[in-house]
Amino acid sequence: MILNDTIVALATPSGAGAIAVIRVSGPEAIKIVSPLFKAKSNKNIQDQPSHSLHLGNLVDGARILDEVLISIFHGPRSYTGEHTIEISCHGSSYIQQEIILLLIKKGCRAAEAGEFTLRAFLNGKMDLSQAEAVADLISSENKASHQLAMQQMRGGFSDEIQKLRQELLDFASLIELELDFAEEDVEFANREEFMRLVAKIQNVLKKLIDSFAVGNVIKNGIPVAIVGEPNVGKSTLLNALLNEERAIVSEIAGTTRDSIEDEISIGGVGFRFIDTAGIRETQDVIEGLGIKRTFEKIAQAQVVIFLLDAEMFNVQGSEFKVEIEKIRNKFPQKPLLVVANKIDNLSETEISELTESLGAVEGSNPNVRLSAVEGSNPNVRLSAVEGTNLILISAKENIGVEELKSKLLEFVNLGELRNNNSIVTNSRHYNALLSALEEINKVQEGLNNNLSGDLLAIDIRQALYHFGEITGEVTNDELLGNIFANFCIGK
Amino acid sequence: MILNDTIVALATPSGAGAIAVIRVSGPEAIKIVSPLFKAKSNKNIQDQPSHSLHLGNLVDGARILDEVLISIFHGPRSYTGEHTIEISCHGSSYIQQEIILLLIKKGCRAAEAGEFTLRAFLNGKMDLSQAEAVADLISSENKASHQLAMQQMRGGFSDEIQKLRQELLDFASLIELELDFAEEDVEFANREEFMRLVAKIQNVLKKLIDSFAVGNVIKNGIPVAIVGEPNVGKSTLLNALLNEERAIVSEIAGTTRDSIEDEISIGGVGFRFIDTAGIRETQDVIEGLGIKRTFEKIAQAQVVIFLLDAEMFNVQGSEFKVEIEKIRNKFPQKPLLVVANKIDNLSETEISELTESLGAVEGSNPNVRLSAVEGSNPNVRLSAVEGTNLILISAKENIGVEELKSKLLEFVNLGELRNNNSIVTNSRHYNALLSALEEINKVQEGLNNNLSGDLLAIDIRQALYHFGEITGEVTNDELLGNIFANFCIGK
Repeated sequence: MILNDTIVALATPSGAGAIAVIRVSGPEAIKIVSPLFKAKSNKNIQDQPSHSLHLGNLVDGARILDEVLISIFHGPRSYTGEHTIEISCHGSSYIQQEIILLLIKKGCRAAEAGEFTLRAFLNGKMDLSQAEAVADLISSENKASHQLAMQQMRGGFSDEIQKLRQELLDFASLIELELDFAEEDVEFANREEFMRLVAKIQNVLKKLIDSFAVGNVIKNGIPVAIVGEPNVGKSTLLNALLNEERAIVSEIAGTTRDSIEDEISIGGVGFRFIDTAGIRETQDVIEGLGIKRTFEKIAQAQVVIFLLDAEMFNVQGSEFKVEIEKIRNKFPQKPLLVVANKIDNLSETEISELTESLGAVEGSNPNVRLSAVEGSNPNVRLSAVEGTNLILISAKENIGVEELKSKLLEFVNLGELRNNNSIVTNSRHYNALLSALEEINKVQEGLNNNLSGDLLAIDIRQALYHFGEITGEVTNDELLGNIFANFCIGK
Repeated sequence: MILNDTIVALATPSGAGAIAVIRVSGPEAIKIVSPLFKAKSNKNIQDQPSHSLHLGNLVDGARILDEVLISIFHGPRSYTGEHTIEISCHGSSYIQQEIILLLIKKGCRAAEAGEFTLRAFLNGKMDLSQAEAVADLISSENKASHQLAMQQMRGGFSDEIQKLRQELLDFASLIELELDFAEEDVEFANREEFMRLVAKIQNVLKKLIDSFAVGNVIKNGIPVAIVGEPNVGKSTLLNALLNEERAIVSEIAGTTRDSIEDEISIGGVGFRFIDTAGIRETQDVIEGLGIKRTFEKIAQAQVVIFLLDAEMFNVQGSEFKVEIEKIRNKFPQKPLLVVANKIDNLSETEISELTESLGAVEGSNPNVRLSAVEGSNPNVRLSAVEGTNLILISAKENIGVEELKSKLLEFVNLGELRNNNSIVTNSRHYNALLSALEEINKVQEGLNNNLSGDLLAIDIRQALYHFGEITGEVTNDELLGNIFANFCIGK
């Protein structure tokens, strides 16, 4: 871990834009930039206060590279905790490259992925789970994942973990003190109080472990398998679901999406739509393989949409029933929505026939809801909720699309999110919490069996170790390397 | 032209990155952002000095959108000349969008393309040619085009034009004053001095008009047609030419180029390589069409590379000669490089045979050089230089590639660029300069013919008008609309 050099990287997305920001951090940041910057005011930035802005030219000898704006941050009052200069230059790739090359020539090192945030962690500006939240925040694409990342970045459950860790540490010290007076048979650590603390820790850990089921799907998007023959209107449906968000994005940020995206944000929650080939039975070997693959995709999904062409109900109605039954038998616990598309062309009689026929099939199927799991199983379990699963839509005419959206949102338990409860989203934290719980359970068992202090102390130390993994008190280069390698360069 | 509202836009490239910058400019900029920003220091940004930086949370009511860094600029000490706030937020597309939507909800308007720079121009922070240089600077992809844009942005030839315009204006005033005293037959404007001024203006205008030939190709890249059969190694050659720059770009900015780019920067100058189908004669109608198209592409290019497979010289040598002759006869003034690829597999005897045969053909062809044109013709004319046009390379083994690069650079007259002369790159400026010269020539003619002051004044006013078009003293909404529509949003 090298911390005594000065690093540089582009902090804004690559590509051309109005402006770009290049970040320089390290003990020599101001000293290196100073001779390269000719302020309009003729002031030397070495003499300027922290948090001040300066307009001027960035020069390489006599050559002017760009007119830039310089932000000065004196350590520790910066993101990294070190002296930091941010150079806001014109957003040409060529200029960005030239400035970075110049800074490297003058003694900076090109920063590695996540190195600015790594330094912020190592300099005590944030704990490890907060540092990880920075990456989550940058990749958040909807309201729910953004809120989770913000919570975590602002302390979130790591404050809670920190507090419990301290209490546990206090007890550990007392028990270890007892070991020094082993012959005298004293008890500095009140065993009853300790039992209460252990029970409290167990509760908190279980609650956090449970929250991962929701946190994980919210962070990564809820996978929804769409089962349906070709031409039933899959892409029209995805377009209808995407429509609103898309319009906003292209209007505001000047971005356009050329292809239909699988990930769609509905009511602030990300859903990942997985296209399948349907499960129509044929003699054909290749189609048979297609059905197998469809079942595999359903198994990976949290929700299944069976999309059918309502216009084909007269001829294919019984086939639809068979296929729906098949999915339900194979995945009895999986939430299943039957969506009849193209109803704008149906008569009222046809619609009621369809509703009666497929609504009846579905009435017997428990409508289910995605919620937190008990215990240590990371898979999401489902609990029954009221209501029917048949939805009539016309993706083309935008009929019933809102109802489908509400239905999809019902599968997500947003209560915890709304109540600002701590939610675990990171599988590294989840695994550390599981390990901590395991050790705490051992401590409890030991207490129940009146285990001696020296044996108790071992399990307590192990639990403390796993707490420390989350917040970063316990760490090593390999772990840090793994975490920060997933960051983008410049963060 | 609305100037009394407050505009907002993303100023950094769209997409995810470590940070993004959102720019707010207008009379209400600070007032609108102030209630949305909770500074860590609890200070109200309305009371803070210009050019100061503040860390805090951006909030929508109770909801925290992001932890951001705010830069404050008080008008006129800002880019636009208005009150400006720059919000440096985490680089998630979702966060960018939410912040911009919030600001619009609170009274900002989404900025149009180039509107920040338009305001800078309208507020007198820069003249029109400098504003245009900002767009050129952002799109500059190599050293030469970057230098041209920097020169123009820092005043460049518009200072010169401005000065001449003032001198001309002074004379115009004197001549118009004479008109008031028409009966008295006085001459306030010394005709001899005026003749000298007109001659000086003519010289400057001609020099600037001439510079456009170089400026235009440097700005847009020098088009090079590659003529050659399939499998002679076109893409290997382009890769070899691209190699160095590519490595730097991907290392520094984290960008990768998946496909071979046509535009390659060599020695800081952009070259646009145009692939052609070759000109091998066949009976085939479709190939005949291919040859026609190749000739069209050669006509558009400034330089032609005839790329041949040296291994095929034994069997195709005479064909090569015929084809080279054909190009030379059809385009006698076009610089032509004969590049024999794959020489790594040839014996020394074979190489000298090839050199003798093709070198001889080429010896009779004037090797030419791209330089500034005389007079008003925007096409680049060529003057003969010494040397042979045959280059032996192996693109695969990187033999001779450097020589080819030097050869290509010889076609560009970089002297003017190196000598920091004013170079015109913008066709709008070029056309205004041509029109101004036309009017000045009329003024000169009028002086020679002892034309009366009232008639002289008309031509002088016309010349002044065209000068003013360049710097923006003379302008209208349509012209400004056209210019700034080509900017990106956020600039």
